[in-house]
Amino acid sequence: MYRTHTCGELRITDKNKLITLAGWVQTIRKFGAITFVDLRDRYGITQLLFGESLNNLLDENPLGREFVLQATGTVSERSNKNPNIPTGEIEIIVSSFKVLNKSVVPPFTIQDDTDGGDDLRMKYRYLDLRRNIVKKNIELRYAVSRAARNYLHHQGFMDIETPFLIKSTPEGARDFVVPSRMNPGQFYALPQSPQTFKQLLMISGYDRYYQVVKCFRDEDLRADRQPEFTQIDCEMSFVEQEDILNTFEGMVKFIFKEVKGIEYTEKLERMSWEDAMRYYGNDKPDIRFGMKLTELKSNYSGEDRNIFKKEIEASGFKVFNDAELVGAISVPGCCDYTRKQTDELTEWVKRPQIGMAGLVFAKYHSDGSLKSSVDKFFDESTLKSLAEKCQAKPGDLILILAGKEERTRKALSELRLEMGERLGFRKPDEFKLLWVVDFPLFEFSEEDNRYVARHHPFTSPKPNEIHLLDDASQYGTIKANAYDMVLNGNEIGGGSIRIFQRDVQEKMFAALGMSKEEAQHKFGFLLGAFEYGAPPHGGIAFGFDRLCAILGGSESIRDFIAFPKNNAGRDVMLDAPSTIDDKQLEELQIRFNLK
Amino acid sequence: MYRTHTCGELRITDKNKLITLAGWVQTIRKFGAITFVDLRDRYGITQLLFGESLNNLLDENPLGREFVLQATGTVSERSNKNPNIPTGEIEIIVSSFKVLNKSVVPPFTIQDDTDGGDDLRMKYRYLDLRRNIVKKNIELRYAVSRAARNYLHHQGFMDIETPFLIKSTPEGARDFVVPSRMNPGQFYALPQSPQTFKQLLMISGYDRYYQVVKCFRDEDLRADRQPEFTQIDCEMSFVEQEDILNTFEGMVKFIFKEVKGIEYTEKLERMSWEDAMRYYGNDKPDIRFGMKLTELKSNYSGEDRNIFKKEIEASGFKVFNDAELVGAISVPGCCDYTRKQTDELTEWVKRPQIGMAGLVFAKYHSDGSLKSSVDKFFDESTLKSLAEKCQAKPGDLILILAGKEERTRKALSELRLEMGERLGFRKPDEFKLLWVVDFPLFEFSEEDNRYVARHHPFTSPKPNEIHLLDDASQYGTIKANAYDMVLNGNEIGGGSIRIFQRDVQEKMFAALGMSKEEAQHKFGFLLGAFEYGAPPHGGIAFGFDRLCAILGGSESIRDFIAFPKNNAGRDVMLDAPSTIDDKQLEELQIRFNLK
Repeated sequence: MYRTHTCGELRITDKNKLITLAGWVQTIRKFGAITFVDLRDRYGITQLLFGESLNNLLDENPLGREFVLQATGTVSERSNKNPNIPTGEIEIIVSSFKVLNKSVVPPFTIQDDTDGGDDLRMKYRYLDLRRNIVKKNIELRYAVSRAARNYLHHQGFMDIETPFLIKSTPEGARDFVVPSRMNPGQFYALPQSPQTFKQLLMISGYDRYYQVVKCFRDEDLRADRQPEFTQIDCEMSFVEQEDILNTFEGMVKFIFKEVKGIEYTEKLERMSWEDAMRYYGNDKPDIRFGMKLTELKSNYSGEDRNIFKKEIEASGFKVFNDAELVGAISVPGCCDYTRKQTDELTEWVKRPQIGMAGLVFAKYHSDGSLKSSVDKFFDESTLKSLAEKCQAKPGDLILILAGKEERTRKALSELRLEMGERLGFRKPDEFKLLWVVDFPLFEFSEEDNRYVARHHPFTSPKPNEIHLLDDASQYGTIKANAYDMVLNGNEIGGGSIRIFQRDVQEKMFAALGMSKEEAQHKFGFLLGAFEYGAPPHGGIAFGFDRLCAILGGSESIRDFIAFPKNNAGRDVMLDAPSTIDDKQLEELQIRFNLK
Repeated sequence: MYRTHTCGELRITDKNKLITLAGWVQTIRKFGAITFVDLRDRYGITQLLFGESLNNLLDENPLGREFVLQATGTVSERSNKNPNIPTGEIEIIVSSFKVLNKSVVPPFTIQDDTDGGDDLRMKYRYLDLRRNIVKKNIELRYAVSRAARNYLHHQGFMDIETPFLIKSTPEGARDFVVPSRMNPGQFYALPQSPQTFKQLLMISGYDRYYQVVKCFRDEDLRADRQPEFTQIDCEMSFVEQEDILNTFEGMVKFIFKEVKGIEYTEKLERMSWEDAMRYYGNDKPDIRFGMKLTELKSNYSGEDRNIFKKEIEASGFKVFNDAELVGAISVPGCCDYTRKQTDELTEWVKRPQIGMAGLVFAKYHSDGSLKSSVDKFFDESTLKSLAEKCQAKPGDLILILAGKEERTRKALSELRLEMGERLGFRKPDEFKLLWVVDFPLFEFSEEDNRYVARHHPFTSPKPNEIHLLDDASQYGTIKANAYDMVLNGNEIGGGSIRIFQRDVQEKMFAALGMSKEEAQHKFGFLLGAFEYGAPPHGGIAFGFDRLCAILGGSESIRDFIAFPKNNAGRDVMLDAPSTIDDKQLEELQIRFNLK
């Protein structure tokens, strides 16, 4: 061993001990004949003091940033203590040292606040990983996986490895495929998830399965997507939805306690998908703050979703009258927004990403008076009634959007999040969990002109709605035993009770436009397995990268992956993907057919 | 939840409780108006008793093997107790039941001693996994990984995920490659091991890394090889070989204790690679038994490796005189082998797999007399001296092989193992661990007509032999800081202290016949990383599948993998690999070029 202690370990109680440390040179400061070196390793930083007697040796072996140094010396009390680091009370009076390896000058500073840009840090990821801020992320990731494993183990779950070289069954995303040299003309696929395997394990009787497992999707990468990503993948037999919600609510609370020291004692709120869409405009509401949407007028039938419809009709305001949806948000304490501020908000909703034609607002002043941008259509008493219906309070700024249903709902959701952000309601260190339940089984794909599975083709309809699979006109109304866990406005996990009967699964495949032959070709093994005593089962998969990012208070999953790929799916450090030898291509019996 | 208890849980102390179980019908026995059903789940088997009152219901819902059944009833004391199972004192008097799912008749019996052949069981692996004997293997595998993780965690190791879509750098085995749709003409490779990544993590300062990780090798499959396999992969910084040997000796002992309840207290024997080859004829000796090889004559110079050379020269026995190596094994207690038995052994060594021309033997009778198959060349007193030199005892059968060095050594090793097997010395429930150390750095490849890395190109020579990399004539003599852990004659882990200096790594690549450009193209990122303060480091990787198999007392790793592939690399359950859609090929811009 090159060291007796780590650089994070020594304290004043170790005074006078003769010790050896090894680590990296963080800083070098010379004061006359004395040289101070901060030595860094995974565990911390310790100050080394090189006295006058070592000057000759230091001249012969000049140190530099990121040099790997082994130093032996005596633990001594520091005169100038540093209360900010655990080793701040001591320093090492160095008696001998050895440079274990040199370093050229790194391309960016190894500090939290580095001068390195994103591209440079990705190219030298091994140096980026030295920065404390990145190390903390990787440590947090390990703590989360360890906590999840421990919880699941104690709940009787077993980690069972499923294969990576499987069969290509594209449904939804695109598979990555692997040509088989031994079976020319054929391919393996990399799993998009172990879905069918975990279901087979339930059929095999393994009862409670988990895996922290890499999954692969060959999608056109959007920001913060990775072609390979990690799931905490779980499945249980002989359970109903309620059992799964309770089990995994427990897991996430355990993670909070172990990793963040947070006792998340309250029962998770459950919200139907319908309510999520109605009150938050999306299926993963951020419930750290209120500002729920109010439907003034919508194309739903209920009066409670058209609370201002009569007034709108009476007003003659064409924009509202022509809209499928008119929705409002009451933004607390913003009634004094200036013209400049409301103009800026108007521009914000008119940006192409939001795509609205304009913004209507009403200022509900503290004195109870109301002033709106549509005063010529609504008198103050009508506006007052509007404010009441929106549950606005004096001091609020009521923001109203109107237009096509889907776009307007999405815009209201974005506007709500934006205002929440501006008002500081979305604190990265506050955590609010939520179950969204009762998802629709299908959604209509305009692109494919058919229904597609909202979750995946193995999701069970609500038991009392299974018969609706026989009636194509009803597909749109079927609800699934599917659920998402949402944390601070991000979906961190999703799952469902699965279909476990062959006939229901066949109907499901048919509803998705799959022929009997295609279903048999792609999923024959699963349909076959259903015939040999499949138990009722269900499960969930957590997006591990995302979960870690949110727990770490970050928006970017890349920061929590040791060796991530960039948005073009490239590893710029390795320079991968890359060309391969002609010999390799020949062995695989494939050639390129480049456009 | 469909159950209140599992099928392995109820005891006589639960008598009179009203409970609900769910599981699979293992057996159905009718005795007059009473029906007994053994209900099975992951946790055990419980006997259900269906009384007369349920006969009508049973007639309407006839049960069959592997049906999924939910049954509610009262725990009752059994009159006919079964001491062989933990639930054997009780049975459930069923009051109501529900068939949750039916099963067609399974293609083989779900029993330890099944009537299903290998192919059938692989095709219906989900049913094979139900068998208790297979389930125990999968459970053992989980226990081993859990124990390894716990040990490593408490030793300060961190699980850090490394990427699966990396760069193809074939050196040794063939890579599986993945065409990149977003980078047409380019491929990712699947990792043969995370070797370079774990070294980068050491350079990043992560100090102690581990991962239980899938690796991929596109090799022509020999029996009991899998294209995807799992390693327990570990790396440490600021350590010397001694530290690694101690750390991982501790890990394997911890696994023995946790998984097998075995306190493996003795310090692991360490054997040099040279001694292993000399005394056991291979680099992974099974030291559960003795029967070491004795070199009567060899092409090594030392007298101790030519203890019978003079006598051989004097004898005029051409077979021995022409041989590069004449080696002997004393087989205890076999001096009374009949002519038939020695003939059979002679045939055994002449099989093509062993490839010897013949077998010489000497029977050392209990009365001290000696009788050999070469009596006309050696008189009894010479044979007596031979017996002494071989440390044979009265009662032993001395077996002698002679021929070309490499083949004869291998044959002696095989013969030793075969005799050990026949004599019952290789007990599957006895475990003997061993470190083999001081491996050669290189071995000469006749095929490539150059030296290749015996371990891999990142292995460090012994520090005092690094300078020999400058002299090609010395390559064959360089020893490496490399080590294998051997369990019962199987290599279960192997590793090395790594090169951590750019110039040494460059010399190593050059010694392997790699041009500067090729080294830069393939491993430029690692060479670059060595310039920024790489610490001394080393590691080890355990073959997880193999380790589990041996701990489970089996020779076959396939039995310990939930969804293995067959010897042609196929998953016969999934029918993978398989063809993919033309659309997929087109998107990847590749086409087949089948011979």
